[in-house]
Amino acid sequence: MKNLLVGQSGGPTAVINGSLYGVLTESIRHPESIGRVYGMRNGIEGFLEGHYVDLTARLSEKEQQALLYTPGAFLGSCRYKLPEELTDPVYPRLFEAFLGMNIGYVLYIGGNDSMDTVSKLSRYAASVHSDIRFIGIPKTIDNDLVLTDHTPGFGSAAKYVASTVREICIDASVYHTESVTVVEIMGRNTGWLTAACALARRFENDNPVMIFLPEIPFDQEAFLSGVSEQLRLRKNVTVCVSEGIRDKNGTFICEYSGAQGTDAFGHRMLTGCGKYLENLIRERLGIKVRSIELNVSQRCCSSSLSDTDLQEAVLAGKKGVLFALDKKTGVMVTFRRTAHSPYAITCQAEDVGNICNLEKTVPANWITEDGSDIKQELKDYLFPLIQGSVTIPMKDGLPDFAYLEDL
Amino acid sequence: MKNLLVGQSGGPTAVINGSLYGVLTESIRHPESIGRVYGMRNGIEGFLEGHYVDLTARLSEKEQQALLYTPGAFLGSCRYKLPEELTDPVYPRLFEAFLGMNIGYVLYIGGNDSMDTVSKLSRYAASVHSDIRFIGIPKTIDNDLVLTDHTPGFGSAAKYVASTVREICIDASVYHTESVTVVEIMGRNTGWLTAACALARRFENDNPVMIFLPEIPFDQEAFLSGVSEQLRLRKNVTVCVSEGIRDKNGTFICEYSGAQGTDAFGHRMLTGCGKYLENLIRERLGIKVRSIELNVSQRCCSSSLSDTDLQEAVLAGKKGVLFALDKKTGVMVTFRRTAHSPYAITCQAEDVGNICNLEKTVPANWITEDGSDIKQELKDYLFPLIQGSVTIPMKDGLPDFAYLEDL
Repeated sequence: MKNLLVGQSGGPTAVINGSLYGVLTESIRHPESIGRVYGMRNGIEGFLEGHYVDLTARLSEKEQQALLYTPGAFLGSCRYKLPEELTDPVYPRLFEAFLGMNIGYVLYIGGNDSMDTVSKLSRYAASVHSDIRFIGIPKTIDNDLVLTDHTPGFGSAAKYVASTVREICIDASVYHTESVTVVEIMGRNTGWLTAACALARRFENDNPVMIFLPEIPFDQEAFLSGVSEQLRLRKNVTVCVSEGIRDKNGTFICEYSGAQGTDAFGHRMLTGCGKYLENLIRERLGIKVRSIELNVSQRCCSSSLSDTDLQEAVLAGKKGVLFALDKKTGVMVTFRRTAHSPYAITCQAEDVGNICNLEKTVPANWITEDGSDIKQELKDYLFPLIQGSVTIPMKDGLPDFAYLEDL
Repeated sequence: MKNLLVGQSGGPTAVINGSLYGVLTESIRHPESIGRVYGMRNGIEGFLEGHYVDLTARLSEKEQQALLYTPGAFLGSCRYKLPEELTDPVYPRLFEAFLGMNIGYVLYIGGNDSMDTVSKLSRYAASVHSDIRFIGIPKTIDNDLVLTDHTPGFGSAAKYVASTVREICIDASVYHTESVTVVEIMGRNTGWLTAACALARRFENDNPVMIFLPEIPFDQEAFLSGVSEQLRLRKNVTVCVSEGIRDKNGTFICEYSGAQGTDAFGHRMLTGCGKYLENLIRERLGIKVRSIELNVSQRCCSSSLSDTDLQEAVLAGKKGVLFALDKKTGVMVTFRRTAHSPYAITCQAEDVGNICNLEKTVPANWITEDGSDIKQELKDYLFPLIQGSVTIPMKDGLPDFAYLEDL
């Protein structure tokens, strides 16, 4: 009988605690193999400083349920890279701590960087013949992990983005005057989340009429021509851009905002690419224009959870426990889509060494030739991931979340 | 038997179409007095150009229901001020159109400026002995209309702001490193909406720890001291500021952002006050900081509707019809709070002449002495307005809104 240690790492998502719920509830179902469930405070970084919490003893049934819709990382998170050299003294220190707590299973919920942690720990374990098993549970709104159809956290972010863009398009269309709205979506290197804006349309040629991903070089002149052309067809034009769009030289479009601008403190002033394109349109087309940066609500909004995403986040946590009990180590839980309609997935375990530090970008053949829209195949891929709603328990008119400090 | 004409004007809210629903459904209940219900397209401006639609004939029961949760202005909106001089030829033109359509009642849903339209039309009617009745239905997320306890549209915006700030505080607290988050809320001259951020707290001294309204002069040095002091008490500090905060000289804080900054086009670069304060904190305190502008979702998010607000928006529309049938004219529907707990309101009719072009600010005695927070009285005032949730019908994973072009 061994104890289980679980941690969260990297940027939070709206359902990262759903995976924690999955780990916790599945662990409790195996009292013959798993004793206590410990949670690292602030990931491996906090654990290295001795911070952890006994979740078995402290979470009531109601608190466990609240994990399902609580955004942020319930256990706290970190952005910490373990040393490349497995000879570094941090490794024996960690394994001594694991031994002291009688840990048999370490589950780490995170993205590319966090899988690097799982990879290093499992390789170190092999090198010292430790039988502790290390499992990665995927999480990222960016949907950029390889070897998996998609990633928990992405579906809810996509649903938030699609709903919000639909509302913005309505809001932008109330006046009978020409206007352009530029919406900036998260995604530095991959355009999965920005692609979800296409789901906001109710019919072909509906707003948002253009969508730009970082995968395709962005041409400012072609963009202006496209906006002008759209303004000949309709009064109100909404375009969506990924924060990471860059030109053919690889220069981020947002970097042009600082080309001549300095702030009140004499510093080079960088705004997002949305703000830059707003200024560009106003300057060159002389049209009423505004830009909107969707910001952190993309990863922490609880009122637009995708039930499909939440259930899959829980499933990933549960499968992680089952894989650990099945003697797997150095693997991440992945999804394979086995059917489109009705949509179905199965779970696999893939070597984290083939996943960590890699990025899955949107395939070029899922983007239109002129680079200003996505193709039906990508819409079909996205569609099932945003289905289903989650009712959030409210208290005093606001969502009643779970907080570790309340325990 | 006369027909009824209804219009929407000014910036939209999440429940402005709830008032339209109220007007429409109440009108249908009085077939002895009200014939057809016409909707102005894009307010009085569009109507002047001959644009209107017959709502009686065209909205199915299902479409009427969908108005209840559809953001934006279903009929389209305008920002159009009628001429001050009632001798202007626009007035006889309008009344000729009313006559041609056999209009007996004109209901106008809007804020301060829209009430100016109601005032002018009713005064012109009196001057020409027309018996057409003009009624104002209040709407604004700013809650700045006088002679009413509060305004439809505000409660849902307040609920959105409080929920979102609560989620942002959670998102901002995941890392174990010192950080400051500045959230910028809509409200150029009044701080009602920013005050709602206080509802995001779960206990005293919870984040957001400071809240700044435009009603109190903003002191940058005192602000920096306050932030530093808070950082001695906690790792993560969230502060909320109204977009309209200004210093003791009346200069908007956002204007300081352009004091030295120019954009890539050589233009003076104005960012919001949130972005300016972010830069100020980074420069002066050297701390990790980010700013978030909540933007238009404050007035168009459908997933955080306050049921109290929605029901009151419908009520205001219905009362408007009843007041018109009761031979009232030149009045706006107002709310009086008759009980705090359980909360209750009654409706009155107040002369629009005493409402239009005036602004109700937050009383100074509802703000703390140092100007960095609100008092319990204001929280008590806000609390009932955000209560109750609304379930939005979904289609294909997204809210299924009503669109006039679909009719």
